[in-house]
Amino acid sequence: MNKGIPDIRTIQKAHERIGSWIHRTPVLTSTSINKILGTQIFFKCENLQKIGAFKFRGASNVVLSLSEQESKNGVATHSSGNHAQALALAGANRGINAYIVMPKTSTKVKVAAVEGYGGKITFCEPNQQAREQALKKIVSDTGAHFVHPYNDYRIIAGQATAAVELLEETSDLDYIMAPVGGGGLLSGTALSTHYLSPNTQVFAGEPEGANDAWQSLREGKIVPSVNPSTIADGLLTSLGDKTFPIIQKYVAGIFTVPDDLIIAAMKLIWERMKIIIEPSGAVPLAALIKNQSVFKDKRVGIILSGGNVDLERLPF
Amino acid sequence: MNKGIPDIRTIQKAHERIGSWIHRTPVLTSTSINKILGTQIFFKCENLQKIGAFKFRGASNVVLSLSEQESKNGVATHSSGNHAQALALAGANRGINAYIVMPKTSTKVKVAAVEGYGGKITFCEPNQQAREQALKKIVSDTGAHFVHPYNDYRIIAGQATAAVELLEETSDLDYIMAPVGGGGLLSGTALSTHYLSPNTQVFAGEPEGANDAWQSLREGKIVPSVNPSTIADGLLTSLGDKTFPIIQKYVAGIFTVPDDLIIAAMKLIWERMKIIIEPSGAVPLAALIKNQSVFKDKRVGIILSGGNVDLERLPF
Repeated sequence: MNKGIPDIRTIQKAHERIGSWIHRTPVLTSTSINKILGTQIFFKCENLQKIGAFKFRGASNVVLSLSEQESKNGVATHSSGNHAQALALAGANRGINAYIVMPKTSTKVKVAAVEGYGGKITFCEPNQQAREQALKKIVSDTGAHFVHPYNDYRIIAGQATAAVELLEETSDLDYIMAPVGGGGLLSGTALSTHYLSPNTQVFAGEPEGANDAWQSLREGKIVPSVNPSTIADGLLTSLGDKTFPIIQKYVAGIFTVPDDLIIAAMKLIWERMKIIIEPSGAVPLAALIKNQSVFKDKRVGIILSGGNVDLERLPF
Repeated sequence: MNKGIPDIRTIQKAHERIGSWIHRTPVLTSTSINKILGTQIFFKCENLQKIGAFKFRGASNVVLSLSEQESKNGVATHSSGNHAQALALAGANRGINAYIVMPKTSTKVKVAAVEGYGGKITFCEPNQQAREQALKKIVSDTGAHFVHPYNDYRIIAGQATAAVELLEETSDLDYIMAPVGGGGLLSGTALSTHYLSPNTQVFAGEPEGANDAWQSLREGKIVPSVNPSTIADGLLTSLGDKTFPIIQKYVAGIFTVPDDLIIAAMKLIWERMKIIIEPSGAVPLAALIKNQSVFKDKRVGIILSGGNVDLERLPF
């Protein structure tokens, strides 16, 4: 099962599987932000999800769907942050070890959180090759089951459940927006929306300094993320061969945004909505601010992907 | 009507009256905070209410219940912040003027918000006498209807609706906690809880540096708040002759807490729950932290009263 692109039944089963473990996060609105932008926005608050990000959905779906045999040596992954916390907590919930390779540049608050959930951390250099090498060694030493942060249909099906809930609580959305890094959230969001609300178009927001997904769509093949530079530290990775085809087929387009707009959007949400989001989560709203005429008078769902920021290092 | 202490029908009518104007705020839980304290806590997130605080409930209830005659010259009040925003927006919603006397020490973000809602501000010295004088002049000049921040049964009935919603979404609460300043939220919370969940006890949290309500309960009469000094700037005022008798009769007790615990509780909520609360809103959780044994293994509802902080002046 789950051998191909998740169908609606697979996504619904994932939702049932993780339902009692996740928060049903609220969908919030802000009259003042709507007024500023001339758009009706429905924010799906995955920053209020357990571990502070949507990643807990996908990680929980994988961990809970493993057989006894597959799970007995624990799970392992590499992650710059939120997936690390997600897998650590999902592993703890099932009572299995979670081995986490983290770049040594990860924010303090994310490292502390992974440790708090009992994750076993190995630090590595902040590049893809170092991550994969460290991970390979851990998997070979422990026999742990590798859980990729995004390039896995079980992960995609889990992330897809955020849009399922958003679509249950809203109607007649013109667009749904999500940020794009590796593409797990975006591809899952696009699938759920395609199945449940085919007239709603899905767009992504992406930092200009890490615009590999935008390039990939333009060139029709995966363009790797090389030396990305953006404050949105959850969106640095490249697309995968499972996420990219779904994005190609079901995502209407990607808007890129500069860091100063990401920071402005982040601050706007903090000030007006009294919720904490991380820079990556502000990218879709930044895209709305940059392209106001596109979204004028539309009904737009935005997935606020996460809220894990170091309160001692705010960008404003 | 509304000539005496609000009964349950009066509170329910207030809820119907304001229902379409307010946010139905979410009740959030945090596994990690529950684990730290050994308590099951249900946070009623009035920081996510319109204008960022519960005060919008009471102000809306007053403004919407005025006759044409009573409302035609607008409304007026004095407030250190959240009630000011609340009355400004409630007035704008009804299309009437809202005249606001604010101490000139009010935080920048609160002043900007009142202006944003179209409130007409008069600044005064930061003391009760200066406020009342400035207000008297405005009322006499304009004929505006005075709306007291808390010492008014219509306000109390409005604030009482937050606990109504909390009790609809939770069950078997041992305690409900609210902060206490002038006592509008606390007396309203105590009334709703008395009517709807008589086995639930209501407690308040109060800053040590502004412990006039605690003193008032002890002495059996209103002890005025003189030179209060606390970071919880929403809790500086004295009880009123309408709020105090309700608190005396229906509130089980008041816990006082020092500012350092208020800041710690505030930071804990920001970090673990990804929501922004102001210091005043952190006071009940600070009381739980200070008195862990009292609340051990209990089910506690906490009303997070507001989220209006100046992001450039954080205490941590």
